[in-house]
Order: sequence, then C-alpha cells, then structure tokens
Amino acid sequence: MTPDAQHLVAKHSEPQATGDLGVIIERATGSVQIVDTSDQRKVASVSELGDLSHASIVFSRDERFAYVFGRDGGLTKVDILEQKIDKRVVQSGNSIGGAISQDGKLVAVSNYTPGGVKIFNSDTLELVLDLPAIGRDGKQSKTVGLVDAPDQKFVFSLFDSNEIWLVDMSGEEPKIQKFFDIGSKPYDALISPNGRYYIAGLYGEDGMALLDLWYPEKGVRKILPNYGKGEQRLPVYKMPHLEGWAVAGNRAFVPAVGRHEVIVVDMNTWEQVGAIPVHGQPIFVMARPDGRHVWVNFAFPRNNVLEVIDTETLEVIHHKEPGKTVLHMEFNPRGEKLWASVRDENKVCIYNTRDFKEVECLAAESPSGIFFTNRAHTIGL
Amino acid sequence: MTPDAQHLVAKHSEPQATGDLGVIIERATGSVQIVDTSDQRKVASVSELGDLSHASIVFSRDERFAYVFGRDGGLTKVDILEQKIDKRVVQSGNSIGGAISQDGKLVAVSNYTPGGVKIFNSDTLELVLDLPAIGRDGKQSKTVGLVDAPDQKFVFSLFDSNEIWLVDMSGEEPKIQKFFDIGSKPYDALISPNGRYYIAGLYGEDGMALLDLWYPEKGVRKILPNYGKGEQRLPVYKMPHLEGWAVAGNRAFVPAVGRHEVIVVDMNTWEQVGAIPVHGQPIFVMARPDGRHVWVNFAFPRNNVLEVIDTETLEVIHHKEPGKTVLHMEFNPRGEKLWASVRDENKVCIYNTRDFKEVECLAAESPSGIFFTNRAHTIGL
Repeated sequence: MTPDAQHLVAKHSEPQATGDLGVIIERATGSVQIVDTSDQRKVASVSELGDLSHASIVFSRDERFAYVFGRDGGLTKVDILEQKIDKRVVQSGNSIGGAISQDGKLVAVSNYTPGGVKIFNSDTLELVLDLPAIGRDGKQSKTVGLVDAPDQKFVFSLFDSNEIWLVDMSGEEPKIQKFFDIGSKPYDALISPNGRYYIAGLYGEDGMALLDLWYPEKGVRKILPNYGKGEQRLPVYKMPHLEGWAVAGNRAFVPAVGRHEVIVVDMNTWEQVGAIPVHGQPIFVMARPDGRHVWVNFAFPRNNVLEVIDTETLEVIHHKEPGKTVLHMEFNPRGEKLWASVRDENKVCIYNTRDFKEVECLAAESPSGIFFTNRAHTIGL
Repeated sequence: MTPDAQHLVAKHSEPQATGDLGVIIERATGSVQIVDTSDQRKVASVSELGDLSHASIVFSRDERFAYVFGRDGGLTKVDILEQKIDKRVVQSGNSIGGAISQDGKLVAVSNYTPGGVKIFNSDTLELVLDLPAIGRDGKQSKTVGLVDAPDQKFVFSLFDSNEIWLVDMSGEEPKIQKFFDIGSKPYDALISPNGRYYIAGLYGEDGMALLDLWYPEKGVRKILPNYGKGEQRLPVYKMPHLEGWAVAGNRAFVPAVGRHEVIVVDMNTWEQVGAIPVHGQPIFVMARPDGRHVWVNFAFPRNNVLEVIDTETLEVIHHKEPGKTVLHMEFNPRGEKLWASVRDENKVCIYNTRDFKEVECLAAESPSGIFFTNRAHTIGL
C-alpha cells in the first residue's frame, strides 16, 4: 500500500457526518476552528484565510463546505470533512458578507471596495455574475445587507444611492428589480425567518425600510419611525447587527440603537409594542429555536454580559457574565445549548439553555462568529 | 493492498456529507432507499428492515443515522454513510412510531402491542427506560402520538385510558407528569413547530385535546369542538395524519376528518376561522418552509392528486395528478422543491415549488414515507 493509500484508509476508516459540526472564526489568527456540538470538542483548525475581522459564513446544502467571507475580499471554501481549504479567491478589496442561493448553487458576496455584488458558482468559485451596483446617480455603490430569499433570489441594499435591489436568479438570465429612495444610507438589513420581509436599517435617518417580498409591487415602505440614531440618548458604540432580530410568535425582538433596550415589534402592524430595559446597548438578539427565550449580548463597554428575556413576560430572567468581550452566540439546532464566544478571554463557553448553567468552555484564539452547519437548511442564513 | 483495503479506499476516496440526503421507505420490499436531493438521484438501497407499512424515521443529530420505526416492532438504525444496517432490535410486537430526544441521545418508540413506550440509547440501542403505560384504570394502554419536546422531554397519549403523559428525561431519573380524562380514545397527536403545543386527535368524540407545554400546570383543554368524526358527512377512509398540520404565521392548516376541506385555525384563540374546499379528504397538509403555500394529498379513492393552497388568499392555486396513490410529501430544506411518493406507480416525483412543474420522477419500489436529513435539526421531527 502506498503511503497515500494508507493515509486515505486511516483518515476515512472512521467516516464522519457533518450535521453536528460548526465553524468558529478566530479573527486574530485568520483561522477557523471546526467544532463538534455532540461531543463539545475541537475537531480541527484551518488557517490562512486572510483578514477575518467581521467575517461571516454560509454552508453548502450538503453541509460539507463552509464559505467564509473575509473583510479583505477573500472568499474561502473550507472543506469541513477534509479539514482544509478547498478553494479560495480574493474577489474584491473589502467585503462585508455573503449569502448562498436557495438551491445551493450560487454564492453571492457584498462588497464595500469597489462596491457591488459578485455571484459565484458554489462548486468552482468561478464568477457567474458581476453586479457593479451602479445607482440611479450613475455611481457605483457600496452594498450591504445581502441575503438569500425564497424562489432563488438575492436581495441587497445600496448604501450610497439609497436603493434596494431584488435579483431573481431562477431563469436563464438574471432579472433585477430596483427600488429607489428607500431611505438614507441603508447600513445593514435582515430577512425574516420565513423569507418574506426584507428590512434595512438606515444610517442617515430614523426608521427602517421594509420590502414585502410576497408583494414587491407594493414597493418599499417606512416602518418604526422612531427607530435609529435620531433617538439616541447615549453614544452609539456600535450599530447593532440587524441579522440579530429574533422572532417569536408574531413578535420581533429588535436591538435598540443607542439605548439600553430591546424593542418589541408586532409583525402584523410593524409597530413598536414594548421596550425591555436591558444591561447595555444590545448587539445580537437571538431567539432560542422554540421562541420561548431570547438571548442578548451588548456593545462595548458593557460587553462582558449575556441576558435572557422571557418572550411572554418580556422580563429579563437571567443575567450572566461569561467574561471579557462576548461577541457572538449560536444555539444548537434544537436549542438545548448556546455557545458564546468570549474573545478577549480566548474561549467559547457552552450553556445549558434549560437552567442557564455553564457546561464547559473550550479554548479558541480570539473567537468571534460561531456558525453551525444546520444553517445550510435555513432560508436567509 | 488487501481487497478490503481497496474497498475502503474506493469507497471513501470521495468523502461524502449527508446534509442533502434523504431516506425513502419502500414498504413492499422492507427496504429503504437513500437519495441525494442535490443531484436528485438514488444513492443506495438498504434492505431487511422488516414490515415497513406505516413506517417512519427520525435522524441522529449528526445526520449520519436514520432510525426506522417498523410496524412489526422493529427499530433499525441505518448508517446512511456506510449504506448498511448498523443495529437492529425488535422491541415489541407492533409499534406505531418514534421520536429522538432534543440532545439526540435517546430514541423512544410507541407501541400498540403490548402497549407502552420504550426508550433506547441512540448509540447502542440498549434499553434505557421501559414505560409500560399502565393507565389509571390499572391496564396497559396502546400509546400514540409520541413526540419529542424542548427541554429533553417526550410526550405521548394513552389510547385506552384517555391520558397524556409528559416525560422529562433531563435529570438522573425520569419525571412523569400525567394528565387524565383528556378526551375519548386519542388516536394520534402533533406538536407545533415551535414545540409548545401538543394536540391529540380523539377517535371517541369530537374536538381535540390541547396541552400547552409552557404551562403544563394549566392542564389539558378541549379545542375545535366541531372537529372529528361526529361531524363526518362522508365515509372516513383514513383518519388524517395529525403530524400533517401546517403552520403559516399564526394560522394552522388542518386536514378535516371525513370532509373535502382543509380547516384554518387561529393559533391565538384556537378557533376555526375558515374551511377551504379541496379535492378530497386531506391526509397530509404540509407548509412550504416559507409558509406561503401548503400542499395537500388525499385519502382513497381520490388519492391520485396534489393540491396547493395559497395561505393568504386561502384559495387552491394548483391541482396536479402525479399518479396512483400519492402517499407522502417532503420539501427540500429551503423549500425549492417538493418530493412526492406515488406508491402504485413505483415512482417518486420531484416538483419545482415556484412554478409547480415536474422536474423528474425517480424509480422506487412502492414508496411511502419520504424523510430528509434536515429533520435532525428540527424540534418534533
């Protein structure tokens, strides 16, 4: 047997499935850590992924590959099974995130420099479509808030020209529907868990821009007129992540901007129906998969804390201090545990979501985003 | 290299992930077919699983193993990666379905003969707990409607003694909470997609029994007083599968019993708010993952048809005739396609859910239940 064959036999004599794996961004070292959520252990590290500050991940529909979107414009396809880089392209100077199409065949990346969106074949990483995102003003725009939507669509916002573009990739040729004057300087966006509502936050004015993807002909409308920086009572250390909206029943739980509050929104009327006082300025507000609790982390300087809100009583029912700089959270697929990255203490801590007790903490190098493979099966993730 | 080693190299030189796989029951031959939903092809067959009429499946949390619950009391753990039976036990004389615990470590099986529920270690299939289900009347009962619930619980109903049992497996010792006089002869049950509401259908009287698992201290209450066999205007050819409830927004779409209708229920009030005329007596009513459409199949003799309902207009927007005896449906995880088993034509047909067009049909031996691995990540499946 050749050494190569021996290696293959040794490596694959224990076949592994990936449904219980996850990938954690280690931003300081430009590496990712592959973890196993059944055994709660590190499986492997993969390095040389470039600048991973603000990096995010989507997964192939077979849950084998993680597409890592780096800040430096790098798009890296990591093979989780083989624990190595499968392919890597540097597709722009500065990118801000990406999405994978409903059918899993296309990966789209949103760029700041030079702007625009590029869409790649998810298998080969070959460029399929280049959308420079030239606004109605004739200039190329930074793009933000790129998400996938049902019926093989992508949606994103143009920061510089105040537009939302809806791109239908289901046919032979892409079809692009553009919405103008959606509000000043959209800086991020989210799509509701059912893939119906696309909501962009506005940096240049109060309120948010809502597009109902079931009825795009109705156009974009303004919601939550008091939401945003015009309302701020405290310095805004960090704009909240809009993808952090939690939906439980008909209510959305939304991080306030510049306030120590989580806002409660009725998704039938799109009106604010409550505001829950919390420890600091919320960053991520994430619903446990059953919707009974939402977990919240906070902006600097109050970012050593996690709080848990009961979605029926709207009260904070738990407060814990995992350590310095709690950056991100991810629930196990069925919600029995939550993983939290504690960047400045180089650890990822795992909590039982039933009694809030710490199960254990794992070592990681400056961990930030945590992404589990079940995202492969979910619209908008 | 030995032939065995050659086999290993050949088999594993192309490592495979299981996130895009599924398992289809072939009831006539006691076999299952493993399929790939990305390439839309058959991957392998695994046989000798016993009597698979009315069989169902749950998946291990790593999406590697399928637990197949056969009618003959057989519990078979199929290794999807290795394409073979990993373990098999015949644990009763006649079983009716099963569930996997939130943490993936326990598999529970519901039995008709001799009744009761048995709980197994999901790794070894060793018996962990035997619940004979002795009712308040002192007799062992058939059990039905077994589901998993958040916080490491199982819930099931006792057909003969009109009880619901809530079993908490989170501690060292199981804790069982029993609800008596829940209604006459519960014959099946469902849990809402968020894992909060457990609803049992009643064979012996009209209406359904509702248990709110967030507030079990409130007890079981009766809902939908007009639902059931007392209302029947037509012979009931088959009681509908209650796990077929579709939830879209705050509304549930429920198969009527003995009527050519899908009932619309407001999940805030638990009152019927509509009835949609359809082609026949509905069996499965399943929501596309984005909740915009529900697909419906029908009981004998009108079981050659599928219909699609728009969840906003409550109108049937599509009608198709896949062929003789359409038994079951499953959506791709992100909803872009639907697979339907057409038993008496020995085929499984795949439809694009955007334009309802047939993509292709695959050969299968008397296919019935279709189960995709993303169920591993979902409460109550």
